[in-house]
Amino acid sequence: MVTEPSWCREEFERRQKEFLAEWAEAVRFPTVGADPNHWEDCQACASWYADRLRARGFTAEVLPTGDRTPPIVLAERPGRSDRPTLLIYGHYDVQPADSLEKWKTPPFEPVWREGRLWGRGAQDNKGQLAYLLAALAAMHHRAPNALPPLRLLLEGQEESGSSGLARCLPGLAERIRADALLVCDTFMSPDGAPALVMGLRGIVHFTLTVFGPRRDLHSGTHGGVAPNPAIGLCRMVAALHRPDGAPAVPGFEPPPDCPSAREQELLARTPFDPAEYERQTGVPPVGGERALPPLVRLGFRPTIEVNGILSGYTGAGSKTIIPERAMAKISARLAAGQDPERCLALLEQFLRDHTPAGLRCEITEQTIGGPALRLDPDSPWAAAAARALEAVCGRSVVYQWEGASIPILAALSRAAGGAAPILTGFGREEDAVHAPNESFALDRFRLGFRFVCSFITNFGGFYDTLASPS
Amino acid sequence: MVTEPSWCREEFERRQKEFLAEWAEAVRFPTVGADPNHWEDCQACASWYADRLRARGFTAEVLPTGDRTPPIVLAERPGRSDRPTLLIYGHYDVQPADSLEKWKTPPFEPVWREGRLWGRGAQDNKGQLAYLLAALAAMHHRAPNALPPLRLLLEGQEESGSSGLARCLPGLAERIRADALLVCDTFMSPDGAPALVMGLRGIVHFTLTVFGPRRDLHSGTHGGVAPNPAIGLCRMVAALHRPDGAPAVPGFEPPPDCPSAREQELLARTPFDPAEYERQTGVPPVGGERALPPLVRLGFRPTIEVNGILSGYTGAGSKTIIPERAMAKISARLAAGQDPERCLALLEQFLRDHTPAGLRCEITEQTIGGPALRLDPDSPWAAAAARALEAVCGRSVVYQWEGASIPILAALSRAAGGAAPILTGFGREEDAVHAPNESFALDRFRLGFRFVCSFITNFGGFYDTLASPS
Repeated sequence: MVTEPSWCREEFERRQKEFLAEWAEAVRFPTVGADPNHWEDCQACASWYADRLRARGFTAEVLPTGDRTPPIVLAERPGRSDRPTLLIYGHYDVQPADSLEKWKTPPFEPVWREGRLWGRGAQDNKGQLAYLLAALAAMHHRAPNALPPLRLLLEGQEESGSSGLARCLPGLAERIRADALLVCDTFMSPDGAPALVMGLRGIVHFTLTVFGPRRDLHSGTHGGVAPNPAIGLCRMVAALHRPDGAPAVPGFEPPPDCPSAREQELLARTPFDPAEYERQTGVPPVGGERALPPLVRLGFRPTIEVNGILSGYTGAGSKTIIPERAMAKISARLAAGQDPERCLALLEQFLRDHTPAGLRCEITEQTIGGPALRLDPDSPWAAAAARALEAVCGRSVVYQWEGASIPILAALSRAAGGAAPILTGFGREEDAVHAPNESFALDRFRLGFRFVCSFITNFGGFYDTLASPS
Repeated sequence: MVTEPSWCREEFERRQKEFLAEWAEAVRFPTVGADPNHWEDCQACASWYADRLRARGFTAEVLPTGDRTPPIVLAERPGRSDRPTLLIYGHYDVQPADSLEKWKTPPFEPVWREGRLWGRGAQDNKGQLAYLLAALAAMHHRAPNALPPLRLLLEGQEESGSSGLARCLPGLAERIRADALLVCDTFMSPDGAPALVMGLRGIVHFTLTVFGPRRDLHSGTHGGVAPNPAIGLCRMVAALHRPDGAPAVPGFEPPPDCPSAREQELLARTPFDPAEYERQTGVPPVGGERALPPLVRLGFRPTIEVNGILSGYTGAGSKTIIPERAMAKISARLAAGQDPERCLALLEQFLRDHTPAGLRCEITEQTIGGPALRLDPDSPWAAAAARALEAVCGRSVVYQWEGASIPILAALSRAAGGAAPILTGFGREEDAVHAPNESFALDRFRLGFRFVCSFITNFGGFYDTLASPS
């Protein structure tokens, strides 16, 4: 039986001001981990987190991950020896804040408005880390001896491929070994029910550049003779999908049991309202493989997306040129069972094969995020998390297969000795993560706090049940 | 018989310093006619040209063309009453100078290097206007009474649609009426032979914007569900051409006699070396309709080009989003007989019809440049120009059908009472017009000067022949 600690709500009310101030303080660090110009900001932010953890009974260290890549924070707190060890993972880096002119208030100057904290990272992931830190502070104060052994790992490149952490993982195995791995970086169900994530897609991404003439050419004196790299790139991108919306890249198909019968059964309980989707996003859910339901497409099927394109003249008025080059940022989400390295190689080969005559293509910034993650919804770890979520939310848990990726998780779980991932979170679509005007609501921050207190103070309780004579 | 005036070369050598200083002075005006921020620069440049013309015996006026659109310069010089009237047309506006970082020296600070003047507009069209002005100065000094009645019209929006001049044309009919219309804004043959342009393509252009979600979406939590406007735009662009390279837009086909038998005969004399083309441009001549020779494609066939594309994240590293919109600048060159208004409407309808599900397209900045121009290579005007070119170049003239457009020419010729267009010029591919590091060589400037002196001092000489008893 998982219950909420009796002191939980009271402790939150008492210390709310302190918790929210700490949250805003975290958002103030412009930790764009992908941008080397923010390396010092990442250093400062990592040190700040280490200090916060020391105040909660942890030993904490900031560890370099390479030459001017953001460091990791590694922390440990001893706990009840009859309990399994819990590793908590999170990231302090954020997405770039462009387009700056679309922000109502500066992205790294957090403000309170409409019951929300606004700023880049206010939710993803600093907001969800902030309720976790708040819960750790509360438990350290109210139930210091009830806690299991805790380990905590924060990184600064989650939004850009986790390459630094991936390099360090082999050397950290002993220090991160754990039975389970808690990650609070995901969304609630769109209808407001708590959610456990049972799957994440894998990801690879790269930059495609198509080269044409040596310099921009006059589109009159060359149009119809010189091959146009902007048009060439468009043809290559258009070739990436079949008319039914599925990737057209040979060998890119996911395995046949994706999703399985059990997964389809649980997925069927998850509500999806096309009209609500359109209301939230401005578009109907008509992307991807037309013949499949949206949640199947999102959770179980690969997708190839263009994240950006740039070519030629894009200012006011016109400039009639054949541009010398065209560039696209392309990412692919992968289903369980798809090998990222192979998928990246297939995509590269496909694009090379589809480069129109007279043009030349180059693929750079190839990044293998990681493979998809597929969890067992019937494991005791999932059950314990479900009960804690239900205790604080008063509603049944929904099982989700997320389309997003936390690329490092599969490797991290493996490096930690097979720690069982437990993925949950209190995000919602309206938080606009990765977009201008990101925010996170206080009421969900409070739910997160209560969930973490409930989950961790009861952590491993089922071990007692398993150990007792039946 | 057309001969070069005896004083011509000597006069050039004597005044070369003055002529070149004037040329550089013209380039110093940053007359980006498409950009309202350069309106004052256009005003100043137009006044400067009017002053230069007054010094050559013209009456000259700077006339407004509308609210903060670049003005025109209209000038007139009386001449021999037994000669036909010649109207000279040119433009003092230039293409935008981006990408600025690719210029070896600032675009509006002309410098001499390697026997060339470097700067935006150094060739197109200020360089070709400069030898024209030099020739007018020399003739005004050496043969003031030999000249035919001359009229001169300069505009400041040739690179951006000539809308101001187009508006004014009906009111100018009396003041620009002429028998022939000389335009020096084109290229020599790639092998260095003098060239007469017998055709120009028409042009229309517009901006296509494809709208998707209300804001950038996370490509993980939405990839495969939300339609992606960057991919949508690529599909729309890819649909614009058939697999054989011809436009796929129904109704966009040129008339069947394009080119005619006589045009094909003359065209066959024009050299085209694919290896030389690739050496000059960096690409083989494999764009457009694969089944046709390059010069036919360029001079007689329509082409649809993408001049620029912008969507989503295009900075360093990655940002895994589904962008909220994608934009393309698209221009089409039209063959003789294609109606620009109809072609633009066909393109718009085609793109609307090909907008993928869930996305919305908007077409803005629609601009009808003008129809194609198709001249008679056997007219007396063409013959007179050919003889003048041959006199100064010592080589046979090549007849060219240019792929480029001078959109206003058809309307201008009509407004001037049917003035016969005579299109020539001394540009070469290496001048990089419309690109960074534009330049024009002194040796071709000198040829231009000698041609103009030869052509104008003999202008209408064939009238004598026509009038004499046979």
